[in-house]
Parts: sequence; structure tokens; C-alpha cells
Amino acid sequence: MSELNNALLQEVLDQVRPLVHRGKVADYIPALADVAADNLAIAVCLRDGTLFQAGDAETRFSIQSISKALSLTVALTRYDDSEIWQRVGKEPSGQPFNSLVQLELEQGKPRNPFINAGALVICDLLETRLTAPRQRMLEIVRQLSQQPDINYDRHVARSEFEHSARNAAIAWLMKSFGNFDNDVTSVMQTYFHYCSLSMNCVELARTFVYLANLGKTLDGSQMITPRQTRQINALMITSGMYDGAGEFAWRVGMPAKSGVGGGIIAVIPGEMSIAVWSPGLDSAGNSLAGTAVLELLTEKLGRSIF
Amino acid sequence: MSELNNALLQEVLDQVRPLVHRGKVADYIPALADVAADNLAIAVCLRDGTLFQAGDAETRFSIQSISKALSLTVALTRYDDSEIWQRVGKEPSGQPFNSLVQLELEQGKPRNPFINAGALVICDLLETRLTAPRQRMLEIVRQLSQQPDINYDRHVARSEFEHSARNAAIAWLMKSFGNFDNDVTSVMQTYFHYCSLSMNCVELARTFVYLANLGKTLDGSQMITPRQTRQINALMITSGMYDGAGEFAWRVGMPAKSGVGGGIIAVIPGEMSIAVWSPGLDSAGNSLAGTAVLELLTEKLGRSIF
Amino acid sequence: MSELNNALLQEVLDQVRPLVHRGKVADYIPALADVAADNLAIAVCLRDGTLFQAGDAETRFSIQSISKALSLTVALTRYDDSEIWQRVGKEPSGQPFNSLVQLELEQGKPRNPFINAGALVICDLLETRLTAPRQRMLEIVRQLSQQPDINYDRHVARSEFEHSARNAAIAWLMKSFGNFDNDVTSVMQTYFHYCSLSMNCVELARTFVYLANLGKTLDGSQMITPRQTRQINALMITSGMYDGAGEFAWRVGMPAKSGVGGGIIAVIPGEMSIAVWSPGLDSAGNSLAGTAVLELLTEKLGRSIF
Amino acid sequence: MSELNNALLQEVLDQVRPLVHRGKVADYIPALADVAADNLAIAVCLRDGTLFQAGDAETRFSIQSISKALSLTVALTRYDDSEIWQRVGKEPSGQPFNSLVQLELEQGKPRNPFINAGALVICDLLETRLTAPRQRMLEIVRQLSQQPDINYDRHVARSEFEHSARNAAIAWLMKSFGNFDNDVTSVMQTYFHYCSLSMNCVELARTFVYLANLGKTLDGSQMITPRQTRQINALMITSGMYDGAGEFAWRVGMPAKSGVGGGIIAVIPGEMSIAVWSPGLDSAGNSLAGTAVLELLTEKLGRSIF
Repeated sequence: MSELNNALLQEVLDQVRPLVHRGKVADYIPALADVAADNLAIAVCLRDGTLFQAGDAETRFSIQSISKALSLTVALTRYDDSEIWQRVGKEPSGQPFNSLVQLELEQGKPRNPFINAGALVICDLLETRLTAPRQRMLEIVRQLSQQPDINYDRHVARSEFEHSARNAAIAWLMKSFGNFDNDVTSVMQTYFHYCSLSMNCVELARTFVYLANLGKTLDGSQMITPRQTRQINALMITSGMYDGAGEFAWRVGMPAKSGVGGGIIAVIPGEMSIAVWSPGLDSAGNSLAGTAVLELLTEKLGRSIF
Repeated sequence: MSELNNALLQEVLDQVRPLVHRGKVADYIPALADVAADNLAIAVCLRDGTLFQAGDAETRFSIQSISKALSLTVALTRYDDSEIWQRVGKEPSGQPFNSLVQLELEQGKPRNPFINAGALVICDLLETRLTAPRQRMLEIVRQLSQQPDINYDRHVARSEFEHSARNAAIAWLMKSFGNFDNDVTSVMQTYFHYCSLSMNCVELARTFVYLANLGKTLDGSQMITPRQTRQINALMITSGMYDGAGEFAWRVGMPAKSGVGGGIIAVIPGEMSIAVWSPGLDSAGNSLAGTAVLELLTEKLGRSIF
Repeated sequence: MSELNNALLQEVLDQVRPLVHRGKVADYIPALADVAADNLAIAVCLRDGTLFQAGDAETRFSIQSISKALSLTVALTRYDDSEIWQRVGKEPSGQPFNSLVQLELEQGKPRNPFINAGALVICDLLETRLTAPRQRMLEIVRQLSQQPDINYDRHVARSEFEHSARNAAIAWLMKSFGNFDNDVTSVMQTYFHYCSLSMNCVELARTFVYLANLGKTLDGSQMITPRQTRQINALMITSGMYDGAGEFAWRVGMPAKSGVGGGIIAVIPGEMSIAVWSPGLDSAGNSLAGTAVLELLTEKLGRSIF
Repeated sequence: MSELNNALLQEVLDQVRPLVHRGKVADYIPALADVAADNLAIAVCLRDGTLFQAGDAETRFSIQSISKALSLTVALTRYDDSEIWQRVGKEPSGQPFNSLVQLELEQGKPRNPFINAGALVICDLLETRLTAPRQRMLEIVRQLSQQPDINYDRHVARSEFEHSARNAAIAWLMKSFGNFDNDVTSVMQTYFHYCSLSMNCVELARTFVYLANLGKTLDGSQMITPRQTRQINALMITSGMYDGAGEFAWRVGMPAKSGVGGGIIAVIPGEMSIAVWSPGLDSAGNSLAGTAVLELLTEKLGRSIF
């Protein structure tokens, strides 16, 4: 087995780099389409905060759906578990991330909090309990990452909102089933702001190390309980990678959550959080080279939860 | 954390026993409906073969879909991986285990080898390459469990075949898409024989310890590669528990495969295989008390892959 | 065969009256739920304007989806046929009237103009071409019925809008596929106003006599072409009665369009238009007693297009 | 309006002939793929038996799904209506003719007797009540057409059976829901024999004139009641043309049933039956030029039920 250090990470990136142009950069909004496809980055944060990195690990990008893991975490701190899980399920969807078919058949209860419908319900919950949900999330992310200048990319947020017809349809469908409390536009604004968080791999690895550390953050505070931490990891492995979760578990074997900006946050429970970034996506919407980086790193480290 | 021994297993069973009548015993065939609902059993097999057990761990029952993990394993020893995965996928289905809807929309390629359609494709593959697929499976199971008198319950197999209309529909639908090579009746006969394997928890834990031991069986031979072993575990955690895989990962956090006979085989990779049995099923078709046993054991042992 | 006159109509109503409480009055908005279930009415208008009537034929009610036949007619006067039929289909849906499943699978193109999605597309077309779409429709209906005081029931329209989540979801889903041009809220306001038209059976029979008269209205003007008239009748027989069109054609054998207010407008091409009303609905959402009235009248008159 | 005679029919064929190569000849079995695409034929049979014809009206072809109207008719003579309609519905499917999706969602009850599932249920009913269902159908068709040498094309029947996986899946799915009584293979053999009936347009027009004559056949006997006749016509207009029934009603406005052999039988109730044939099919599986022939004839005759 190889030892984990910056050189190893660089070696992994070098080996994977030929794949960066095989994926397709998300282009449903111009703000995402403009990102250079050849960005490639990795950062690893151990439980004690030790950090390794390689490539463009200090270049920020739009974290997009990775934010769904954050908003779920925040919801767990503000609600009893049962209040959350009566409104959103825990099962893989077996469907594209933004489909309405299953949502209608299952009467407006989203399959899990990592598909759009589920994340919108979580944002609806936060809208009810947080006084300033956008400001509050910024404070949380800045504290978790220990990086006080993290911010929303308002250009991305606005652009998302202008292309939000499908998400509006999802929210209204849930409202028709009584599973959406607040104003659709307000909640979507919050949702798109969360998606537009601009962070780099180093910041992401630091932010999410609590998932590798039984709920403890870098500054030693207990964000969520050990049990809740394991539960989020379980949910990520079954549903974190859109309709490619099975393939990802098969190849990489780590709980993970990806975003269409090309970022992935992955976790080796009890050991480390790993953030990778490469904008080109595979057919399931996950970073193609990013997945390959994680797969290769797993092999070299000889680490897998399986 | 508690130490693993027979007393701990007994303690877990005692605590869970009040749940044994909450589940519903499978009754689609008489042979299964007749099993006493109050059976409750557990057996644990460590990598070195050490065995712990409690309850009715030496009473045999119909392993049903647990056999799907066996037939996949055997297929991996007879085919190149790509030959298998071009005919069956690796994703959770998000649907009941015997639905044809998704199978038609996805042109006859089953989502994974643990739903009925996928297992039938695997049996079709075995029918092609094994000379006597029923006899061969018996030999394999007898060797894995080191128990030479394991056999099919022919009464169950016949009864299943007589109630096989849905599975016949699935097989014929795959045939219509060119994803089924052999005679439908022959393959179904093989499939139902595998399902009718009569084994107890001790035998199941011994049989499946290779999944906890990087592919090595009790007698030290390498059944499948370490990589294939991890892959099966990954597949079990995303798709092993029907449409309740997400909830199961959330509560128990182990790769596992269940059967409608009320058995579950679960794995803590690198450590142990665990077989539980209680005939009453929850709404997803998994043993209700069996799941509770695994959840409680996880808590007491402080073991989880997450 | 019986002769058509008021006495015959009264006889039909008397025979059907025992059924008025078998149906279920629509209750998704309070304004509809408050209508007395025992209303029962029929009016027949011959091509020459001769009118027969019985029961509560001068009591107004909410015409609801009957307005979909009107808005389609108006659209045909403002657009080339091809402009309409590239945005909405002509096939029965085989689904509930407000489902999104098929709409998503068929990429935002509604199956026909008589399900909600299709009617919303038609209203979107009218919103583009009519300067004051609500005022214009009022003028048209007043002219067709020769009744200048017909109006919207603004209480119903407002109530519908407050319960419009499902329709909003439908409109946004079509927008996400590029099949919706105008502001969703504006178009829905227009749509609900059309649905809230308050008319009685006499007025409805007069209004729709053009469908029995090759497009000619009561005042002798040509509303649409004979060909377009036949086409609307064809569309009504295959898709005019929600997911009960087949049963209705089977029993009654006339092109017809119903509304959840309990009204039905039916046509014997070349002869007469028939309006019936009874608020109780069958399981497909069509007036239960109203359908029975039309069936019995067909038998007594010996008239059927088949 | 033009007068109906052989010259008019010839004129219609001449005008439509340029379309014969626009359609696609069915090729799922070799026996159908071999038919020359440029066949074009029409025959009209008036209520009194007067016959008009043009083109290849005496060339036989495989009537395929047109036989579904015959088997339904025979079933109506052997069962009470309610016995039939509790096992098959009367609604358009809104789906391809051989889909299993809806059939599973609606628990094994086919939408109507003109999709494959529905026709298989009808054949299952006939298998139960007719002593020699294949021989009996031959006798009926020979009597209706007054042509004693009509026969099955056993080459086509065998070829269909060899490609029957999809239909087997449909039958087994219905069996799994308890909606299929007899042996699947036997019923399919009967079903494919009916489909393989080899008839020409003249024979078809004569056979089906009872649908234009309130149930009376050419020899003056009452095949089914006037009411049942109207009901079959109603069912044909809503469901007779696969998933193109709405478009066909829109363009042609006649009750009709088509087959993938390129034949269509259409009815002007009270007046005439019309058989057309051209092997090239449109995207819904209906004869492309055949539909155009009927549309043009409608225009020239000024006849439409609407």
C-alpha cells in the first residue's frame, strides 16, 4: 500500500489527467458552462486536520449538489429526526435526479434528501426554522472550513433561478400533496444560493471532515451525533451519486456526494474526507475524472469500507 | 463496547424477541406460510472460522433470495466481468423486486443481480456454462459450509414453480429484448431450486464468510478475487435489501442480502459474516426482527462500516 | 323511437333522478362543494335554434372543463392548425386528467387539449394572441349563447387559484421543456377564469350548437370551418371525458366534454347539441346522472353516431 | 359530393399511390417483411351486399390485428357482456400496443380488447368456451365472407409463435394477476392463428359489413345485437388504431381496426364497411397509405360520423 502524502495525490492526478476531456461540462446555465474543463484537483483532510492536496485544489468552483449534504446536516440540528423523515425518504430513487414520475406515484414524498425534490423539502424545513437561512448557511460553512471569505456566487444563483422551471414544477407538485410549506420562490432562492456556494477542494475537505470524525468538526465541536453521522454516510452510499450510486460504490466504495459543478466529497469513515474536482461529467452527472481519481486513490491506499 | 460471544448474541435475541410477531410471514406459497413465526436465530462466523450462535441457529429454512448472492458469485468464477455487466446493471431499482415497469423502460436489462429479473439473467448465464447447474450449486454450497447434507427442498421448489407466473413474465420480457438465451422453463427450474436451498444460520454464516475475508473461503481457497468481493459487498449495500436498502444501510450499516424466508446474511468486511433468521417480514419484504437483531448487534459491538 | 320534446326530456330526468345521490360532488374547492347534489337538468338545441329543456335547465353552474372546448375553438380561429398541433397532441392519455407522468415521458407535449396540461397550453397560446383574453372569451360566450349577462364566478376563480399547486406544477414542467411561453401565473389566472364561467344548460346548449352545425353559430356566422368542427367532435369522442372516454362512447356514443361542476355538453353532429347537469361525479370525474341522462336519451331517440 | 363507384375508388387509389413507399413494412417476422410494399387496395361493401373495389382488392394478406375485432365479436356471442368486461376494459391505453407498464400498474386488466393483452384475454375466454377455437373461427369467417376457402397462413402463424416472447410476457403477467385461465402456449397458438388469417379486401369488407348493419351479416342472420354492434364501433373509434386512434378519428372520422399487415377495416355505421390495404406502416403501426385512402374517400363522399 502507498503512504498518503502530497506526492501520492499528484501521482494519482497525473495518471487520471488523460480523462479530463472525456466528460461533458454541465451547460444548462452559462455560468457553469464557462468553467475550464481541464481543472483537476484533490484535497484530503485527516481527522486531526492534517491536509494533503494536489492540482487546482485552491481554485474555487460551484459546489452545487454537494450542498445537499450540508443542508441535511443543518436540518438534523434543528429538527427531531422523525420530523425530517416523515417528509423525505431514505431510499435510492432508481431515476434521474430531477424526474417527477416517482414523486407523483409516491404522493409527493421524495425518495431521499439528495435528489432535487428531497433537497427542496429540506430547504423548505430550513426556511421554517432558520431566521435568515442564507446568512446562516454562510456562517456555518465559514466556521466548518475555517475560511471566513467563502461566499455565494450570486451570478450562478441568479442564472440557476432563471433556469429553474423543472425545480419549480417539482416544488409545486410537492405543494399539491401538502409536502411543501413555504413560498416556492423563496425556498428556491435559498436552494439555489446554497448550490452556488463557491469553494475549493481544500475548503470542502475541511468542511466535511465531521463525516469522517463521528460528527466532530475541525474546531472540536460536535456538529451532529455519531449516529447521525453514520446515517448520513449510509445515505450517501446508497443515494449520494444520483442514478450512478451503485456503480460508484462498486468502483470506489466510499460514501460520497457529487455536484454538477464537477466536485465530489467522499468519506473514509473514521479516517479522512476527500474532495476532488474535475468539471467534465459522466452520463449519470458525476465528475468523470473525479470518480477515476477516487477509484485510483482507493486502490493505492488499499482502503475501502468493503 | 460489548465483547462478541454467545451470551451477547442471546442477549440481543432476548431483547428483540417481542418483535417476532410484528412481521408478516410470506404466504404466496403454502410451503413458506407454514413456517412458525416465532423462530429467531443468529450465527456469526469470524474470518478464522470461529463461530458464535444463539436461538434456532441450527434449524434449517428456505434461503430464497439469499441464493442470489451465491449465484452471482458462481457467475463471477465462470465469466469475465464484462460479460456479466453488459447483461445486468449495478444500480438500485427504486421499485418492488418483481416489477416489470422499469425492465421494459430499460429495454430488458435488469437494474442489478439481486432483483428477480437480474437473478434470472444470472441463472441464464449459469445454465449456459455449467453442465449440471443444480448439482454444481449443491456441491459449492456443501463445500463452502463444510456441511455435506445441505439440499434443495423439492417441495418448496415445486411450489414456487407452480406460482411462477410473474417470474415467467419477467423472463419472457427479457427474452423479447434478446437478454435471455436458454429455455425459460429450464432456467426457472434452476432458479427456484437455488431459492429452495434449505440451510440454517450456522451454515449460512460459514458459507458467506468469504465476503468478509477478501474472497477466501473457510477451507482457505480463493473463491473470487478481493476486488470482486468488495464489489459484491458494495452491490449488497446499495441493492441487497429490495426497496429497503436505504433504510437498512441507515439503521444497520452493513452489506447484506435477505430472502423472503426471513433469513438475512450480513457482512462486516474484514471481520465476520452474520446470519439471522426470523420469518416475519416488514413491508419491504425483509425480516423485521432479523433487521432489528442486526441493528442492535451493531450498536452493542460498536461496529459499522460508516 | 320517441319524439323529441320537453315531455320526453322530463321523462328521462324522472327516470334517472334516483341516481343523483350516487355520484360524489367535487370538493377540492369549497365553492364547488357547496352546490346542491340534487340538481338535474337538460337542454337540447337543434341546428335551427329550437330549444327543449327540463329540470333545472336555467340554474347556472360552474362549467369548468367544458370551457376547454371553447378555448380550443377560439385558438383555432387565431392560429394555423399546425401551430396548435405542434404544441399539443390528439391522442387519449390513458391517464388521470392531471397526471405529470406522461407529460414528463413525452417531453412536455400534452396528449390532447382536453387534459389540464393541454388546456393550459391552449390558454398560453391565447395569452399570446388575444389582447384581453378574459374579456374576449366573455364576449364570445355571450355572443354564442345570445345571453349578455354571462360572467365569471370570481369566487370560484379565486378559490381555484388558491388550490392550483398541481396545475402550477404542470405548467412549470411544460416550461422546462420549452412548451410554455407566457408567465405561469397570468396564464393560470386566465385558465381558472375560463373554468369559472357560470352558465346554465340552456346557455350551454345554445353556445355549442355550432359543433352540431358544421361550425355555424346561432346567429348564422361561421365560427370555425366544417372540417375543424368535425375534428373537434372527433377529439371529444376520443378524449373529451377524461379517462372515461371509452366507456362513455360505449354507453352514449356521442362526442362530449364534461366538467367537474357536473355539466356535460354532447353533440349529435348535424342535428343537435345537448347540455346536461348533475353535480355528482363518477370515478372518472364525469357527471354520473348526467351520463345516464344522455344514455337514456340516446336509447329513446334511437340516435347514435354508431 | 362524389358518387360511390369503382371509378371513384380507383381515383382515390391513384391519388394516394405516391405515398405507398413512405410507410415501413412490418419486419419483425420474415413472413410479413416479404410482402411487396406497393400493394394498394380498397373494397367497399354496402349494407345490401353491393360491392365496389379497386387495386389489389383480391390479393390476400395477413389480417393480423384486424382479427381482434372478430374474436371480440365471437366472444360477445358466447359470454354475457359482464363476464367479458370484468376481465378487459374499454379505455384507450395511451401506450404502445404491446407495453406491459400499464398492465402491471392496473393489476393485469388490459385497457381494451384491441391491444395485445386484451386480445389475449379474449382468446383465453374463447379457449374456455369453444371446443375447437381455431376451426370454429375459420367456419365463422368463411360464413361471414361467403368465401369457403379462407384459411390460416400456417407459415405466418408459426413465425409469429417463434417471435412471441413479448406476448408470452404479457400473458404470464396477466396469469400472475389471476386474469388468464388456460395454458399460455395453447392460447397464444390460437391467437397467432387468428392473426394469420389470410384474406383480401373484398373478403374483409364482406365479413365486417355486420358492423355497418346493426349486427346483421350478409346472409341476413343476426350475429350480435344492434347495441353490441354500436358498442364495438365505439370501441374501435376510441381504441382501434393503437396509439394513433385520436389522429385517425381526427383525420378520417370512422370506427376502424388496423393490422400490422397493412390492412384496415373501417365502418360508416348504417351504410358500409370499407377495407383498405397497403403494407407500409406509419409510426403508430397503422397503414400509412391506407389511412390516406380512407381520409380522401371521406372527403370525396362527404361522409363522416362527425
